[in-house]
Amino acid sequence: MDLSIAALHAAYRDGVLTPADLVTQLRARIQAHAAHNAWVTVLDDEALAPLLARLAGHSPDTLPLYGVPFAIKDNIDLAGVPTTAGCEAFASTPGTSATVVARLIQAGAVPLGKTTLDQFATGLVGTRSPWGACRNAFDPAYISGGSSAGSAVAVALGEVTFSLGTDTAGSGRVPAAFNNLIGVKPTRGRWSTHGIVPACRSLDCPSLFALNPDDARCIMAVLDGVDCKDPFSRAGPPVSGPLTGYRLGVPLPAQRRFFGDAPQHYARLFDDTVARFAALGAELVEIDFAPFAETASLLYDGPWLAERYHAIRTLMTRQPDALLPVTREIIERGALPSAVDTFDAMYRLQSLRAQAQRVMRDVDVMLVPSAGAHFRIDAVQAAPVQRNTELGYYTNFVNLLDMAAMAVPAAFTDDGLPFGVTLIGPAFSDEYLLALAHQWLAQADLPCGATGRHWQAGPVPSPPGRIPLLVCGAHLSGLPLNTQLTERGAFLLESTHTAPCYRLYALAGGPPLRPGMARVSDGGAAIEVEIWSVPEAALGSFVAGIPAPLGIGKVALADGRRVSGFICEPQGLETATDITAFGGWRSYLASL
Amino acid sequence: MDLSIAALHAAYRDGVLTPADLVTQLRARIQAHAAHNAWVTVLDDEALAPLLARLAGHSPDTLPLYGVPFAIKDNIDLAGVPTTAGCEAFASTPGTSATVVARLIQAGAVPLGKTTLDQFATGLVGTRSPWGACRNAFDPAYISGGSSAGSAVAVALGEVTFSLGTDTAGSGRVPAAFNNLIGVKPTRGRWSTHGIVPACRSLDCPSLFALNPDDARCIMAVLDGVDCKDPFSRAGPPVSGPLTGYRLGVPLPAQRRFFGDAPQHYARLFDDTVARFAALGAELVEIDFAPFAETASLLYDGPWLAERYHAIRTLMTRQPDALLPVTREIIERGALPSAVDTFDAMYRLQSLRAQAQRVMRDVDVMLVPSAGAHFRIDAVQAAPVQRNTELGYYTNFVNLLDMAAMAVPAAFTDDGLPFGVTLIGPAFSDEYLLALAHQWLAQADLPCGATGRHWQAGPVPSPPGRIPLLVCGAHLSGLPLNTQLTERGAFLLESTHTAPCYRLYALAGGPPLRPGMARVSDGGAAIEVEIWSVPEAALGSFVAGIPAPLGIGKVALADGRRVSGFICEPQGLETATDITAFGGWRSYLASL
Repeated sequence: MDLSIAALHAAYRDGVLTPADLVTQLRARIQAHAAHNAWVTVLDDEALAPLLARLAGHSPDTLPLYGVPFAIKDNIDLAGVPTTAGCEAFASTPGTSATVVARLIQAGAVPLGKTTLDQFATGLVGTRSPWGACRNAFDPAYISGGSSAGSAVAVALGEVTFSLGTDTAGSGRVPAAFNNLIGVKPTRGRWSTHGIVPACRSLDCPSLFALNPDDARCIMAVLDGVDCKDPFSRAGPPVSGPLTGYRLGVPLPAQRRFFGDAPQHYARLFDDTVARFAALGAELVEIDFAPFAETASLLYDGPWLAERYHAIRTLMTRQPDALLPVTREIIERGALPSAVDTFDAMYRLQSLRAQAQRVMRDVDVMLVPSAGAHFRIDAVQAAPVQRNTELGYYTNFVNLLDMAAMAVPAAFTDDGLPFGVTLIGPAFSDEYLLALAHQWLAQADLPCGATGRHWQAGPVPSPPGRIPLLVCGAHLSGLPLNTQLTERGAFLLESTHTAPCYRLYALAGGPPLRPGMARVSDGGAAIEVEIWSVPEAALGSFVAGIPAPLGIGKVALADGRRVSGFICEPQGLETATDITAFGGWRSYLASL
Repeated sequence: MDLSIAALHAAYRDGVLTPADLVTQLRARIQAHAAHNAWVTVLDDEALAPLLARLAGHSPDTLPLYGVPFAIKDNIDLAGVPTTAGCEAFASTPGTSATVVARLIQAGAVPLGKTTLDQFATGLVGTRSPWGACRNAFDPAYISGGSSAGSAVAVALGEVTFSLGTDTAGSGRVPAAFNNLIGVKPTRGRWSTHGIVPACRSLDCPSLFALNPDDARCIMAVLDGVDCKDPFSRAGPPVSGPLTGYRLGVPLPAQRRFFGDAPQHYARLFDDTVARFAALGAELVEIDFAPFAETASLLYDGPWLAERYHAIRTLMTRQPDALLPVTREIIERGALPSAVDTFDAMYRLQSLRAQAQRVMRDVDVMLVPSAGAHFRIDAVQAAPVQRNTELGYYTNFVNLLDMAAMAVPAAFTDDGLPFGVTLIGPAFSDEYLLALAHQWLAQADLPCGATGRHWQAGPVPSPPGRIPLLVCGAHLSGLPLNTQLTERGAFLLESTHTAPCYRLYALAGGPPLRPGMARVSDGGAAIEVEIWSVPEAALGSFVAGIPAPLGIGKVALADGRRVSGFICEPQGLETATDITAFGGWRSYLASL
């Protein structure tokens, strides 16, 4: 069954499916795949009844996630259902849902239950559960990745449309890669952590697993928004860039690590992926990965372990044996460092942050493998800490450096296991990363998860926070005032023509020589123009710098669009020369 | 002698003074006031020679701080001169100057030496120096305030034009208040801390003491700018607001504390000051000071003491007796907390930060007494920790909450001692705070420091980051589209008229009804308009929302200014009605 939001909503509208029917079918499917160990709790009829009852009187037209089934990592509260965090002794039943869960239910989504995780979200493997390792959706001998293990597997197996995970070190990205999913690790503070068992409270993010970019976009919009119950909650202006010609940073070849994956050829698959991004229009920049790798190592070797200890300090003091040995041994180290050690590490982090920012100034986004290798469950159990550390090489630094990340499927190994990459950008670049992921997946021709279904891609939506600006004179590429655009971070979107209803004039005065364009009721022509994408926050100072008689109004294009662009006061045209016959400013300049 | 930058530069230009002469006179003055204990090191002829030699071939026209004498707190490096931080055993002689010092010297300023501080900048009193307490510029029986003690006293006594201090807890504000100076505590990261002995590295700021706002503005411009040697260095867009009708937050009366100052009447002086700010145009808002006061208490009762320990951990381990007992007893407590304690306090801080942000949403800036009382030196020595804690009530929270602050003189007590207040705003509101300080001091008629001289105030310069925007139609106050301005944080600057060269038209269409204004060569009139101040970052989205035939260009005012404002495409006027005779859009609407 196609569980994409669009397909479900179409089926609901056509009357061939109801949410209650869907839930029944999906619970059977969950049962059939029980060997994957993806679920801790599946809601029964009694628990589901009120959630389905909420939908009465609604439809896909009134609720954006009407009847869309989802799974919840079991460190995130769902009212009335135990939250275990993968530890029986820690479990308790919350009276209210986490903010992210409440927002999804409010939007019409239907939770089917709670999913397996590495205990206390401490791990990237999915094997650290008291109820057995979670098993990969493609090959149960392989790890699911973690800590959001079951959330990824459930989506990949087509048991739900999407799921919530959490991501402190990489728990929303590694399982996405190993199960062929999109894994959204949003900007810290963008989605509320209220009602989520903390791992490292200063770093934790909820995360999202989705089958396709359209679903991801729709769910992200529901999850977004400041929550006064979460003191780390915040908003910020969107950061974005071009969809072609953007600078894509990749680690220097010598800094890429693949941890003995030779049979899987991750190194080659990453090379291929990078080449395909370049073919799609990315400008590749090899960057120094050293500050990122050193930052990654701080997460488990530094004082941030004390945050994990802090989160469960009562249990650690009274019942340490209630934890799995591997989890306990990691977390108990959090009791050791001093405040002096903590600040020492924070100073080191601040220095690495400054270095990383300098590296990122040369690129728009970074691309890394989501993981350097995919291990079998038995291989992880033989060296649980070492394998886990290896899995964090490309992920652990992201939250410490306050970056946004999006894991996307990239290819398959010869054995039919998925290989994924992660796009990483600055805080609040989430929508830009999604636009790049959309562009990538639209051509990648990969199935969604382990469902065998393919996504029908539409055009890439423009990332927000930028304004298209039409220029027709001295701001055109290569002309004297063009730097006023480029120094503001603008880039060229297209070279095109106005609607055939304008006349072009050479204004008196200069240098620089400047044209004025006037819309006319009769006798107009199509004028050659360029459209630039300008960051919204930078447009004001550009407008303020324009001298009379010009200004920024609206200009009509041949295809019917109206975009912001140069207009001219009537008085300025009184002393101007009509140059419409040249068809554009460049042709006129060439004639001088 | 008038040591203001303007007066010195005038004297240099007139040839009645040279920097070398000035330095000689000032060193004599320093000698005459030696009992104040303001200086640790005064540069001798040999040390000054190369600094003066740098000025050869320059003038006030080529260097903004040409020949301007300044003092440096002795925890900030000056190449070739020992940095003691108030502790002989810690002293060493740096080979290069701190970034802030180097920038000042590069701009032509001349350092005269290093000034007394509370040891390791730990204190707000000025008494914690191994070389004796620094004494107040107005009455040597009173504390100077600290830790930037000598830097404040030297400026107040007219020994230098300005000085550098540092401010972690309030060390740039309390001494400003007690010595009748402007004390600039910039946004964290705005001025480099490279070459400064850390107190709490995550919170430290250099600070500035100045006699008047014009000097402060000039020096701030020199100090500003990202420094790649300081990982905490950063830049951000300026935050500002109106100069009249701005919302001024003051603590609820029950939350104001004055620590037994009854004879000095600080409570009454603060009330008077608040009333005078209101008379100058501030809209008073009583705010809940509780989250600020609780944050203040975290600084010395929480793990941030570990930063002070970290900064001198080698000395604390090997030679703890090299410290003054009071300093050692405070700092040695920094060795005790754990990483778990540290994160616990950071979570509490994050919660307080969220609360404080909610409070600050209701105001543009906050006004507090710079200190709740002014103690005699013997009173502080009798209870050194308690008195110090009291002095931090209005200051300690500012850096923990990432705010900017500016201490300004406000009044004098009956005993002739100064009383000061501090303006506090969000990060990057520095220029806005300075504009408010300028407006305040322009009418306060106070002497500068203890010099007896008065500042000749010019008009208040506009704070940066905002653009004046002229509106003439549906965006006027109270009209249907005005909310497009107010929801972007714009405020009304003035109601005025255009130059008498415009015609006004009622455009076809609507609602909303809209006018178009056109500049004409003959037969124009002066049209009633309003000018609004719009945040630069918000103007772009406003412009993008304007439909044809309108746009934003330049409009001429009666006084010759040209400001950004509404213009109209010629085609739009073809179907419009000339309503120039009404003199403005409101009169026309009233006629309908």
